[in-house]
Amino acid sequence: MCEKSSVSQSEQTKTQSPSQTPTVPVVAVVLAAGFGTRFDPDNPKQLVSVGGKEIVVWSIEAFENDPRVTDVIVVVNAQVGDEVERLVDANGFGKVRAIIPGGAERSDSTQNALQMLADAGIPGDAKILIHDAVRPFVERRSIDGCIDALDEFEAATVAVASTDTVLLTGDLGDRKVIHSVPERPNTFRAQTPQAFRFATIRKAYAAAVDDPDFHPTDDTRVVVDYLPDTPVAIVAGAETNLKITTLADIPIAENIAESIRGPRTREEAKERMHAVFAEAFNQMRR
Amino acid sequence: MCEKSSVSQSEQTKTQSPSQTPTVPVVAVVLAAGFGTRFDPDNPKQLVSVGGKEIVVWSIEAFENDPRVTDVIVVVNAQVGDEVERLVDANGFGKVRAIIPGGAERSDSTQNALQMLADAGIPGDAKILIHDAVRPFVERRSIDGCIDALDEFEAATVAVASTDTVLLTGDLGDRKVIHSVPERPNTFRAQTPQAFRFATIRKAYAAAVDDPDFHPTDDTRVVVDYLPDTPVAIVAGAETNLKITTLADIPIAENIAESIRGPRTREEAKERMHAVFAEAFNQMRR
Repeated sequence: MCEKSSVSQSEQTKTQSPSQTPTVPVVAVVLAAGFGTRFDPDNPKQLVSVGGKEIVVWSIEAFENDPRVTDVIVVVNAQVGDEVERLVDANGFGKVRAIIPGGAERSDSTQNALQMLADAGIPGDAKILIHDAVRPFVERRSIDGCIDALDEFEAATVAVASTDTVLLTGDLGDRKVIHSVPERPNTFRAQTPQAFRFATIRKAYAAAVDDPDFHPTDDTRVVVDYLPDTPVAIVAGAETNLKITTLADIPIAENIAESIRGPRTREEAKERMHAVFAEAFNQMRR
Repeated sequence: MCEKSSVSQSEQTKTQSPSQTPTVPVVAVVLAAGFGTRFDPDNPKQLVSVGGKEIVVWSIEAFENDPRVTDVIVVVNAQVGDEVERLVDANGFGKVRAIIPGGAERSDSTQNALQMLADAGIPGDAKILIHDAVRPFVERRSIDGCIDALDEFEAATVAVASTDTVLLTGDLGDRKVIHSVPERPNTFRAQTPQAFRFATIRKAYAAAVDDPDFHPTDDTRVVVDYLPDTPVAIVAGAETNLKITTLADIPIAENIAESIRGPRTREEAKERMHAVFAEAFNQMRR
């Protein structure tokens, strides 16, 4: 574990001018501890470079560059820890307070981060944004949307409306059969960040750990399942807030990186497209 | 409307040898009447060429080439009707019995096809497979999976398991908030074909038309909503069974077409990739 500097204490709110609403710490937890079993096991996806920048660097930078985010915690595994530390230093990410080890499951990594924040004494009303490092292209408006939503709600998650009809199923013998078809305008696909007031996510996890069947795949579910009276708001995500899961996602990510970088000269665009093309071609030949 | 030849009557089952289970007509309805408002309005997506073949030709061919499919009906709009007719002739699709006009909504097009089949006197136990023409890469195993599922079930739909966590929402003021998070193994994204015994889908639509709020976005929903005691089976689809919706889907479709065509020489592959690249580059410059 690498302690960079102390996480914002609630005292920081005292420096606000009286005309402003007192602000609370806004802490981004970037989860980069996954092993990416569906990716190349020898080549951790967090460290793969897209658009000339490592995926984990894109993710940390999104929060580093948002002036409303006060602190960043990065959760890593042993395979990527040293390299993430080097990248944080090399990129001069001044908001990264700690790089801490994760756990076997995603929820273990979240819990390690929450414990670290509790030990650091952050206040219960701090805003915690938990983000998957392998979603490198999260937009500023989604991050800010989470921070704003927490003024009204105890929990919020970035999500996109589903363009496909979603079918909810159950088992009938060895078959899946449809139980219901929810109205499409009320079906969303979860993304990250998922955002919580610190006391709320702590309470949800505290309730959850007593349940032997507790294996949540995301943090929002912990609140929905264990604090059912706490409404969780939807914050607008984007299709570009892609989760990089398999090698097939890399060319898509390259295109998004390209579109984010914005207009460039025809010659540059041509070179870049040639590089993408050559990479796709090489992959095809393997 | 272009009547190609009569749709299989139930008499055809009489030609089966006694050792075989008598078979019923298996009719594919290919819906190609959409206007693709999210695509290029002057360039109907059904007629766009991917991998050297028009999208609607891919779709019809999938059913034409499946020996278990006996008949194909194509539903068109006025914009594409003549060209679809030309393509059916040019490709020698011998199972296409009729090319009929669709309606304003998808469900109108389905209903036109069902009425045409009723007028043609097909039996109630005929197997009807309704497919979106803009899913050109439907796999044989999915088509056959539908035909098999109808031996056990009155209705079935091709679908893929959702890789994202699905959130079901409701309104709270001007916000969407989460109502529930279904278990991921029980969340699927609907694709096509969607398959029904003829009498079942007729009955579902007959019940639905009396409902003033009837605006289904797919045929499975009509059975789920109006014949709630009829279980609908899930048949394995594939990510490659892509619905082409926007121009951004075309390069993905080209890659799938490429992978379906299978191994080719390096030189051919290189040329093909250069063509894809050039197209993407040209689109980017527009």
